[in-house]
Amino acid sequence: MSNPRQLHFNAFLMGCGHHSAAWRRPGSSLEQLGDIGYYESLAQNAERGLFDAVFFADGQSVGDVAAGPRWFFEPLTALAAMARVTNRIGLVSTVSATFYTPFHAARMLASLDHISNGRVGWNVVTSMFDAEARNHGLEAMPSHEDRYSRAAEFIAVALRLWDSWADDALILDRAGLFADPARVQPIDHAGEHFRVDGPLTVPRSPQGRPVLFQAGASEQGRDLAARYAEGIYAVAYDLQSAQDYYADVKRRIAAAGRNPETVSIMPGLVTYVGSTEAEARAKQAEVDALLPAEQSLAQLSVFVQEDCSGWELDAPVPPLAPLGDFSGPQGRYATILRIIEAEQPTVRQLLGRLAAGGGHCTMLGTPEQIADQIELWFHSGAADGFNLMPPLLPESLDDFIDEVIPVLQRRGLFRTAYTAGTLRGNLGLERPLVSLRR
Amino acid sequence: MSNPRQLHFNAFLMGCGHHSAAWRRPGSSLEQLGDIGYYESLAQNAERGLFDAVFFADGQSVGDVAAGPRWFFEPLTALAAMARVTNRIGLVSTVSATFYTPFHAARMLASLDHISNGRVGWNVVTSMFDAEARNHGLEAMPSHEDRYSRAAEFIAVALRLWDSWADDALILDRAGLFADPARVQPIDHAGEHFRVDGPLTVPRSPQGRPVLFQAGASEQGRDLAARYAEGIYAVAYDLQSAQDYYADVKRRIAAAGRNPETVSIMPGLVTYVGSTEAEARAKQAEVDALLPAEQSLAQLSVFVQEDCSGWELDAPVPPLAPLGDFSGPQGRYATILRIIEAEQPTVRQLLGRLAAGGGHCTMLGTPEQIADQIELWFHSGAADGFNLMPPLLPESLDDFIDEVIPVLQRRGLFRTAYTAGTLRGNLGLERPLVSLRR
Repeated sequence: MSNPRQLHFNAFLMGCGHHSAAWRRPGSSLEQLGDIGYYESLAQNAERGLFDAVFFADGQSVGDVAAGPRWFFEPLTALAAMARVTNRIGLVSTVSATFYTPFHAARMLASLDHISNGRVGWNVVTSMFDAEARNHGLEAMPSHEDRYSRAAEFIAVALRLWDSWADDALILDRAGLFADPARVQPIDHAGEHFRVDGPLTVPRSPQGRPVLFQAGASEQGRDLAARYAEGIYAVAYDLQSAQDYYADVKRRIAAAGRNPETVSIMPGLVTYVGSTEAEARAKQAEVDALLPAEQSLAQLSVFVQEDCSGWELDAPVPPLAPLGDFSGPQGRYATILRIIEAEQPTVRQLLGRLAAGGGHCTMLGTPEQIADQIELWFHSGAADGFNLMPPLLPESLDDFIDEVIPVLQRRGLFRTAYTAGTLRGNLGLERPLVSLRR
Repeated sequence: MSNPRQLHFNAFLMGCGHHSAAWRRPGSSLEQLGDIGYYESLAQNAERGLFDAVFFADGQSVGDVAAGPRWFFEPLTALAAMARVTNRIGLVSTVSATFYTPFHAARMLASLDHISNGRVGWNVVTSMFDAEARNHGLEAMPSHEDRYSRAAEFIAVALRLWDSWADDALILDRAGLFADPARVQPIDHAGEHFRVDGPLTVPRSPQGRPVLFQAGASEQGRDLAARYAEGIYAVAYDLQSAQDYYADVKRRIAAAGRNPETVSIMPGLVTYVGSTEAEARAKQAEVDALLPAEQSLAQLSVFVQEDCSGWELDAPVPPLAPLGDFSGPQGRYATILRIIEAEQPTVRQLLGRLAAGGGHCTMLGTPEQIADQIELWFHSGAADGFNLMPPLLPESLDDFIDEVIPVLQRRGLFRTAYTAGTLRGNLGLERPLVSLRR
């Protein structure tokens, strides 16, 4: 009897939550942001909820320190600590292919895979901001094309480094060999961006290769995901855009010669759970009300390229130019137009939507209502699971675990216990084997 | 009442121990080298012994995998895990200034300082091997001069990044600022080797700056240590060479305008402890006997630049050319000549000495005898403490903790409880304060 297809969930941990005003709430976790114990307890909660993994973003520049917390811990060190207070949940770290070198990245991720007994994932990004480049010796970010060309080579090198120790390379013969040199081999890579002889210093890790996540939205990003990703963190505002993305990327995966069923597409998802829809809406309104209006309107002015400073917060959003007439960055503007069309929000509501997860999907309502939407996405070719972006931490994560997960379990859509000891196993992925014997 | 000057000890953790045949012993920890719990228990033992810190070396190439374990975990991730099962002991990670970038290094170390609540130290090295360079895009190692020039700039940048957040930068005002932008400032560094705008992404860490360790032996290394190091891991074969090094480096520290008393010089120290001297000597002989003769003689042939393959293992070492007539690398050859002169070893004994800590001091005997030697070094201008290099792990570390530490405590030379919560505090170092307010 084959198991029915199951949902996958990552818990995307971010400070006091993904809503940019989350830290302003009375009683928020603001004072705990420098305490690794806070993140450990979030990971333990997510493990209680049987999540596939916790997910850490990363950035290499500080941002606007007045406006709220952005980064604090470096994710690889934070996840190493979190590995020791959890047992089954995966640990996904973002590592930039633009600012790391493949040897460092492969080595740290392999080390972390040993530390966690096989629970590590790597979210490959190419980074975005010139301020990040200027912390790493560059004047500005390399072009999109250069970054993706580098990332593709970076991943290929990392995979080869992980495969540079055969699974059975360690002999551990006290009277003979520690490891068999024939099964630990250089990779002798010399490419456009990197020269790496190998082998890695770290013996083959429990998963063989840490699980690869990627979040390709652009053409090049989608192609990179199709070639390498085993989990994809997608940005989808609504069911239709999720279905379009899902179909396109699954097609590309097949075209790259891989089995599309082995790759989980997991859109970002912001949830507000209430015992009634009104209660959920009130939770959202409560944190939206904490957004500093002036600062948010100034940011919106940048997004829509007109002066919004005089807009009335509780009035409907004034008419905006159609997408075709807009000369600025298209992606976020298109999302704003879609939000206005679908939800007819007030200005304050629009600011709140943008403040929590930006262009990602928001599901709001009772546990049953949210489970209905999740099931709809799952069964209509829009998602294999979700990267949960709790607007408030720890509350929104706990709400999801305590209220929504049980509904999904009752419907047979989500595991009731971990089925494997590794992230790879829980995602239903094969463990790659390597034998280098000549 | 001022406290009498106290010894400092780091525990230099390395696989099954620093003796290259340690892993070959029956019952050695060989099977635990991939288990982070093994290193955690070593760190817990060292904490029980009130050591200032555990110390991790690092290398970026795999070495001879047949001959024995060399590297396994990457140290920053390993120490992050170990931080969560210890409370007071420091955690010193080697990070190469040749292969990392200062932003990555400063960020990870600051993150680890938060995770450990102020217990991190950084052992700055410049790396040595071409095989390491070839894992990082280079054909060969940069020259010694280039590496030290880069390291000096690297350290200066890291210090400025750690100082880029004022101690009071975090405001945490829910109705106002998260942090005060006037107290989080760029460093705008543009030097010969690095361009780094800053500020760091990580707020000021508990120690302000992780403690800086360095192991300068060369002229440039000693000068770098004199400028920056707060702890120095020295190589000293005997009391005389330790005194020479100590006097020279303390003089350089003063010449650099710093207080020499604030810098702990800690030679590497290999110990074999027994209830009698004969028992200690038997422990040493037992592991020496496990050295594969052919492999060790081949290595010795390289060191002395003549064919040693026919040497009889249990005969005295044949006469060697004086240092002045030797054309190969001087340092290790000089040590070999000193060992022969001082100890008249057999060939097997010489191989054993070289196999355990190379040119570092070995102290062997009863706890009282070893304490006598330590006290002598401590009181005769040779050492402020030691970087203990247990030849066998965990046994030699436990022997030192259980047998030697109590003797040193009874003599008033070593603490009987931790005196501070941070590594900086336990080393008697001030916590630097930064206020960036303009």
